[in-house]
Amino acid sequence: MEEFKNIFVLGIGLIGGSMARDLRRILPQATFYGIDANDDHLDEAVGLGVIDHSSRIEALSQADLVILSIPVDQANLFLPAVLDAVESQALVLDVGSTKGSVCDAVKDHPKRSQFLAAHPIAGTEFSGPSAAIEYLFQHKTMILCEVEQTREDLLDKAMQVFEALEMNIRYMNPHSHDKHIAYVSHLSHISSFMLGKTVIEKEKNEKDIFDMAGSGFASTVRLAKSNPATWTPIFKENKANVLESLTEYINNLTHFKNVLEADDFEEVYNEMHNTNHIKSILKGLS
Amino acid sequence: MEEFKNIFVLGIGLIGGSMARDLRRILPQATFYGIDANDDHLDEAVGLGVIDHSSRIEALSQADLVILSIPVDQANLFLPAVLDAVESQALVLDVGSTKGSVCDAVKDHPKRSQFLAAHPIAGTEFSGPSAAIEYLFQHKTMILCEVEQTREDLLDKAMQVFEALEMNIRYMNPHSHDKHIAYVSHLSHISSFMLGKTVIEKEKNEKDIFDMAGSGFASTVRLAKSNPATWTPIFKENKANVLESLTEYINNLTHFKNVLEADDFEEVYNEMHNTNHIKSILKGLS
Repeated sequence: MEEFKNIFVLGIGLIGGSMARDLRRILPQATFYGIDANDDHLDEAVGLGVIDHSSRIEALSQADLVILSIPVDQANLFLPAVLDAVESQALVLDVGSTKGSVCDAVKDHPKRSQFLAAHPIAGTEFSGPSAAIEYLFQHKTMILCEVEQTREDLLDKAMQVFEALEMNIRYMNPHSHDKHIAYVSHLSHISSFMLGKTVIEKEKNEKDIFDMAGSGFASTVRLAKSNPATWTPIFKENKANVLESLTEYINNLTHFKNVLEADDFEEVYNEMHNTNHIKSILKGLS
Repeated sequence: MEEFKNIFVLGIGLIGGSMARDLRRILPQATFYGIDANDDHLDEAVGLGVIDHSSRIEALSQADLVILSIPVDQANLFLPAVLDAVESQALVLDVGSTKGSVCDAVKDHPKRSQFLAAHPIAGTEFSGPSAAIEYLFQHKTMILCEVEQTREDLLDKAMQVFEALEMNIRYMNPHSHDKHIAYVSHLSHISSFMLGKTVIEKEKNEKDIFDMAGSGFASTVRLAKSNPATWTPIFKENKANVLESLTEYINNLTHFKNVLEADDFEEVYNEMHNTNHIKSILKGLS
């Protein structure tokens, strides 16, 4: 991986910025360039030491590694042009939260073998260059899709990087990834946003309701702080799977409402009791 | 508050046990008695040093302070008998999560003035004596209801205890309390339980889905670890308010689903953007 000397990060926010911070530690001899639609973010990233220089798409021919960490609909649009622009030694790594459409976007591209589709299961509810933190990826899962389509020498280097980041690798089909991630990630965000909305709407008429909120509410509503500019494209790209999971969630809530309405407290108890084993499932996650 | 020499805790779990642990520090000369329907919990609480002795309802005539921390439907049933049993120097403090029905249950009781209805906004997703921890209540909100109905000398002593626990006091009407707490606490639990259920149901057919779960999912689903024996009575006692908040939540989720289905991504964005100011609302909560 020492061959990665010129590293370009497209989209210098939470994920791209955090990855740059870690790679600077792992590859101290490399130079880091940032490309971003937001010039203020580029200046901020240079100021914070997340990257060395701001740059432009035209300079990508110098790249040894390109990290694509922009909103997922933009990634689908830009990826073919990024592959067009790089030389044969470069690896292009996409780290967005949906994988089906981005793999489809380059499936017939002549440089498909220089592309690796990845999804690090890591993040916080914050965004922008100031949200970039070191060790965000340590001991987290990295999902890789269609690795058989990536050139072996480039995949080897990528694996060295992920090992240096101390990540746990899993291999998945991109469409299976999108189906499962709708449940364990995308749905949580909608559940949290709409919980926040419901309570805020109530609070408009009833003052000081939030003085009564405890750590339980704070935990459940935490993801409602997430960036809509990141999440709108995710819901757009993964619409069918998200709608499926959301429909099942609404059905389960409606069933709970119906049994409570009918005073069937045995069933209310069972609904919760049967879900309690989430304890053992989540062991180790925090 | 030094007059609190014999302290009886009815229900020696997360809340009652944590309160006992703190009071032992604050009132080192007092003796602590536990009463619980579960004998194993009593033995465990003695073994852990949460209480000094296990005891029985018949001994309550010796009590200077009784802390009622049992499921809320049980509290409504037992409270009149507890008041019947205590002498005139005793304060009976209820710390359950609903306040309307427990206040109603003793409104005409001849010893109503020895009762104080309270709700500490503190807790974790764990339960039983082993969940009892010190400093659970520090810097948390304590909601007090109908304080004007509690005898002044007993209220003074209670306030000294809450001050020693470093709690922030708020005064509320019990029915307003129940209405607001449905939104900021009870609804979060249902949202979390049903999220857990939705993902577990999916996982039955699709293996290893939880390998893909990150800290965001863990945070949103944390409350699904809570004890159904605590929460079923809460939903029962606060049924009307919980149903109202749950109906609004389901309506908001359904609206989100409809705009996503209609490809109205501007509205999808706005739904999230308008909820983002939960950030500033939640400052200081964690």
